[in-house]
Amino acid sequence: MNHLRRLRALRRQMKQRGIESLLLSHLPDVRYLCGFTGSNAFLAVTTKRAVMFTDGRYIVQAKAETSAARVVIAPKSARDEACRWLAASGVKHCAFDPESTTIAGLAHYRDALGPGHRGFFQPLAEPLLTGLRLVKDEDELLLMKRAALLGVELWNELLPQLKPGVPETTVAALLEHSARVRGAEGMSFETIVAGGARSALPHGRATTRGLPRKGFLTLDFGVILKGYCSDMTRTVFLGQPTRRERFTYDAVREAQMAAVAAVKPGVSCGDIDDAARSVLRKAGLADYFSHSTGHGVGLEIHEAPRIAADQSQPLLPGMVVTIEPGVYLAGQFGVRIEDMVAVTQQGGQVLTPASTAWTQL
Amino acid sequence: MNHLRRLRALRRQMKQRGIESLLLSHLPDVRYLCGFTGSNAFLAVTTKRAVMFTDGRYIVQAKAETSAARVVIAPKSARDEACRWLAASGVKHCAFDPESTTIAGLAHYRDALGPGHRGFFQPLAEPLLTGLRLVKDEDELLLMKRAALLGVELWNELLPQLKPGVPETTVAALLEHSARVRGAEGMSFETIVAGGARSALPHGRATTRGLPRKGFLTLDFGVILKGYCSDMTRTVFLGQPTRRERFTYDAVREAQMAAVAAVKPGVSCGDIDDAARSVLRKAGLADYFSHSTGHGVGLEIHEAPRIAADQSQPLLPGMVVTIEPGVYLAGQFGVRIEDMVAVTQQGGQVLTPASTAWTQL
Repeated sequence: MNHLRRLRALRRQMKQRGIESLLLSHLPDVRYLCGFTGSNAFLAVTTKRAVMFTDGRYIVQAKAETSAARVVIAPKSARDEACRWLAASGVKHCAFDPESTTIAGLAHYRDALGPGHRGFFQPLAEPLLTGLRLVKDEDELLLMKRAALLGVELWNELLPQLKPGVPETTVAALLEHSARVRGAEGMSFETIVAGGARSALPHGRATTRGLPRKGFLTLDFGVILKGYCSDMTRTVFLGQPTRRERFTYDAVREAQMAAVAAVKPGVSCGDIDDAARSVLRKAGLADYFSHSTGHGVGLEIHEAPRIAADQSQPLLPGMVVTIEPGVYLAGQFGVRIEDMVAVTQQGGQVLTPASTAWTQL
Repeated sequence: MNHLRRLRALRRQMKQRGIESLLLSHLPDVRYLCGFTGSNAFLAVTTKRAVMFTDGRYIVQAKAETSAARVVIAPKSARDEACRWLAASGVKHCAFDPESTTIAGLAHYRDALGPGHRGFFQPLAEPLLTGLRLVKDEDELLLMKRAALLGVELWNELLPQLKPGVPETTVAALLEHSARVRGAEGMSFETIVAGGARSALPHGRATTRGLPRKGFLTLDFGVILKGYCSDMTRTVFLGQPTRRERFTYDAVREAQMAAVAAVKPGVSCGDIDDAARSVLRKAGLADYFSHSTGHGVGLEIHEAPRIAADQSQPLLPGMVVTIEPGVYLAGQFGVRIEDMVAVTQQGGQVLTPASTAWTQL
């Protein structure tokens, strides 16, 4: 990872906006900028210097992982030490991210400096790190492609093991074990394995129920590889479908393919959402598509942009988003198909190339 | 789970403090009070009513899981809908938790109501949910005992498989697979498997390195069972130890046992920390014990109280805390031993009864 390049990009943004210094506490932001992966970190950035403050649990790890920033191990509070360092650094103001700073957190910043520094901490007027992380750099795209391909391998390996009666949790356990053995640090979120009527739950986490003799099975899962999340969903059928089940699957697949095909630089996120939604509208199923079409993904499983109605954000080369329309008929069944798609100069590249053709087990 | 009883306890606290209504957004708090486990939820509580707002992904799940609160599926923003419902409910003010509400989140609350409702949202002067969740009720203790015992079973099952050369990630994969098969929803945190010199990293996540022929191996892991986290650490030795290695282990074990023995109602968290630290001080190792002695655990892996120096919070029956002193010699080796301990009327009950005796593989 070229952390120096990212810090330079951050400083360009800071300069443009007249920001002298910045205090970051959101861990994925800290990792993005300097590589540190510990659970407690405050990154102070001025025009000249960057210092990462953490605690005594990370003496060795912080030095090994952090680049582009100096490491300070705070004997007491990493947060307070970061605040005091900033106040002593000669800057008049320090910006913080209001999206990731709590009311109590800001009060602690202010308490660390005392009443002599009123107004020192100022919220960013516009998101900053969100904008930087929105477009992935080459290092990130490489890791995300690997994470996504690992997901595809796991899926292909799992398919022959999906049989009626196998508990959903066993399916999850198989998948997660393979992920670990192949190098994943963990899963991006609690694996969704939802069979039969449970496929109508968009977030149906694995239960001890067996897979159905007859019905849909939805699997939605992701791995974390070197910090980067993958995310994909496939829905398959066990037994003989009704016409309505088959019709619904085909409509969701068509909607998903339409949205993937619409991905290219300059198209708004709202238009991508509409590309999926309008297919389902024609099929009379739009009322059962009860969520947005997708989201950005990266160091976090949900990042900017949102692929949702009325989102004017245009797609840019380097963004990585999910495209995941679904239809959910409560008490009956549900279908969702999801790919990760990287926005390229020309269009979109599907990073999760597993078949979405109707699959009957 | 008796959610009604928890809501009653919450309302008693609200009444004592003169709080008319409360808006909660921290997901473990929402789950604690009404059972909903989705990833987007706002719980509005007045003296008479409780309403949980979520989105279209959770139409079926929210109804199935939620008790003690009415469910509203918001067509657009669950947050905005919750704010508007509160403003229309007849209360003059609504409290929110400054520890879990971001600056941007509060601005969204205010924007949802517009300028006519200045001062409607007010931060809690003292933490409220932290205090309720600090002492576990009987339902919770039962689940936490099960989660902790599952951890012990996994450890006992894993021990014979720990051999030189086995990659740390394979060890993690074995452990996590067994956890899943035995009913865990997932792990409480990224499993720590740190062999040889890496045992000096308090948070040494599993790498692809093989277990050492000669050296310490630290395993720190937890499972999530019905939402509740377990947490335990054991350190074993592969091969023949030096005197110093054996001395260090014995000192850490003695410190850990001293702190566990000190657990009883009324003793301050600071005194528990000191019970461990003073043993290590006598052994000349206190400088290498670079973190606090423990933390509360429950729906979250880190909860109140903190078992750290100068913490005046007294232990209360029903608290569940970890006791986990460690010694870390950078570049050489480290040792940590951790149990989960429930505070009882008489003293402390170790929930993770796996041997801590010197174990040489």
